[in-house]
Amino acid sequence: MSRSLTRRFAMSAALSLGLAAPALAQGRQQWRMVTSWGRDQPGPGTSARRLAERITKLSGGAIEVKVFAAGDIVPALGVFDAVGNGTAQMGHSASFFWAGKIAAAPIFTSLPFGLTPVEHSAFLLHGGGQGLWDGLYRPYNVKPFTGGNTGPSLGGWFNRPINGVDDFKGLKIRVPGLGGEMFRRLGALPVLTAPSEIVANLRSGVIDAAEFLGPWADLAQGFHQAAHYYLWPGVTKPNGSSEALIALDVWQALNGDLKAVVEAACEAESHVGLAEAEWWNARTLEVMVRQYGVQPTALPDAVLLALRAAADEAIESLASRDQAARLVLEAYHAVRQPALAWSRASLQAFLRARNG
Amino acid sequence: MSRSLTRRFAMSAALSLGLAAPALAQGRQQWRMVTSWGRDQPGPGTSARRLAERITKLSGGAIEVKVFAAGDIVPALGVFDAVGNGTAQMGHSASFFWAGKIAAAPIFTSLPFGLTPVEHSAFLLHGGGQGLWDGLYRPYNVKPFTGGNTGPSLGGWFNRPINGVDDFKGLKIRVPGLGGEMFRRLGALPVLTAPSEIVANLRSGVIDAAEFLGPWADLAQGFHQAAHYYLWPGVTKPNGSSEALIALDVWQALNGDLKAVVEAACEAESHVGLAEAEWWNARTLEVMVRQYGVQPTALPDAVLLALRAAADEAIESLASRDQAARLVLEAYHAVRQPALAWSRASLQAFLRARNG
Repeated sequence: MSRSLTRRFAMSAALSLGLAAPALAQGRQQWRMVTSWGRDQPGPGTSARRLAERITKLSGGAIEVKVFAAGDIVPALGVFDAVGNGTAQMGHSASFFWAGKIAAAPIFTSLPFGLTPVEHSAFLLHGGGQGLWDGLYRPYNVKPFTGGNTGPSLGGWFNRPINGVDDFKGLKIRVPGLGGEMFRRLGALPVLTAPSEIVANLRSGVIDAAEFLGPWADLAQGFHQAAHYYLWPGVTKPNGSSEALIALDVWQALNGDLKAVVEAACEAESHVGLAEAEWWNARTLEVMVRQYGVQPTALPDAVLLALRAAADEAIESLASRDQAARLVLEAYHAVRQPALAWSRASLQAFLRARNG
Repeated sequence: MSRSLTRRFAMSAALSLGLAAPALAQGRQQWRMVTSWGRDQPGPGTSARRLAERITKLSGGAIEVKVFAAGDIVPALGVFDAVGNGTAQMGHSASFFWAGKIAAAPIFTSLPFGLTPVEHSAFLLHGGGQGLWDGLYRPYNVKPFTGGNTGPSLGGWFNRPINGVDDFKGLKIRVPGLGGEMFRRLGALPVLTAPSEIVANLRSGVIDAAEFLGPWADLAQGFHQAAHYYLWPGVTKPNGSSEALIALDVWQALNGDLKAVVEAACEAESHVGLAEAEWWNARTLEVMVRQYGVQPTALPDAVLLALRAAADEAIESLASRDQAARLVLEAYHAVRQPALAWSRASLQAFLRARNG
């Protein structure tokens, strides 16, 4: 959908829903937050709601944020455009949806074999990531923040067993971001669809496999009824940062106090959302196994090695054809490199000692 | 130091420093935040400063928080009492310092072989942990929050090699919380000292070993010049939550907007502090190895197994002798149990696939 078409669609939808136009009456602003998620969808949807409530509360009502589910005003994949063109003041989505517009964008959600949630936050806050992200989105009138985190994803749902690398050949798999490019190099056919359409496509055989999030979000969508094999570990999306998008002109017009409110609310939600995902993913994995008979299957080491090599190739290929992506990947690599040794001596070794 | 002595000491110190008494003039409050850390001490000290600044900023100056380093008003281990008895409105410390007063308190920092930072947050926010913590501190007029996280600690600094379990016999080791009890069961002699005294004790031979935090905080204290062996993984303190303590009467007198401010600031700092620790720990480990010739040494598997068994015993022993601790440990275990399977299939398997 072109920009002007999106805007026209959104305006007519807004009028037909009887929505108030953005108001600045008595110094109070009403913001529409359009999202790529169903209302209160476990993980990203619950983060979007809490974030909206927190901004409203912390600003003492100076900014009143109202959340719209995917399709209410704009479709799931129309969030970025809607924020940039003034249809909405704010959005909640994930950067890998904008790969067609900005080649480097997916890096700000996750890279295959890339950074974990805490490492990703280090990249944004200390490794120059936030500044690079700001620069990428600025020409589109969009200011990004992380506004929640669904944690590491598992390996996804498959209707065929994966015993070796050859099993990826011809596999139609729904996977966003660089993960798609990784699977393509092993002979699969990656596709990108909005979250709401994945399970139907998996049931109907339009796709053979799909990666979404962790057990909590996946069970709510009904993946366990649509595919036989639940594979682990997830290597495509070790981090699950959502993005909170603010229209840049709206952001710039805020005074310092309200800017501090938006920033604190996003940072608090990055903590709260990650803890929530951790809690429910652990519980839900247990429920899936005990109650629904799901048998999570480990990917063989040979497959993991082939996936890692394919991921490296996909990332190098992106760096070679897009200058902005190259810059972002350099900064990302500068965080990932020392993180390898540190996580090996700390979290990886600890979990092995604790978990057996 | 008794409560009244602490208070008298604090008041005279405050007078001699020319500090303003807590003021509620024009609806503005001035809060003293006493801490267990040196000023801007990497990790907990930088968290304390940012948290104070954020509360001041988000409240529009309605609460102005001023940070005091350990010893400025009260000593490092006097923070809890100072907040409870009105010497300070707020404190920044770690719960394992209060084991002598509240047997269950150390669980709210970390348990040996216990929860990782994200799992610990899930325990607090979803597993009933926050409510239990509130209940433990309420009789002392203290309301706790997590106000930062230094991440997983490494295994500590030793002046003797640890090749087998027998090497713990007679080892004088500085370690707070249940970790001390774990080492005691293997024949060591655990001691607790304020952070500022550890390195001097290690140099002088008063202690043979010490656990503090991760590479970033440890290098700043000079551990690498005081001990030969840096051991990994850290099993004593897989989580590094700081606690932000508010005097309960001060907290209860806040209106809802200011309560929301304090809560959001603490949650934001739990995100920002953890990312900061991740960044600097990874960088500093590299610097330690390349620049200072530190050779981190892996603990043998047999030692890790013995430590895990000793940790289980120490935790069971605590549960058997303290009813409040038993309740908290039940809630903790209800989070840890499903977290084992989830982390095994997600983070542990992912890090192994990524890191090799």
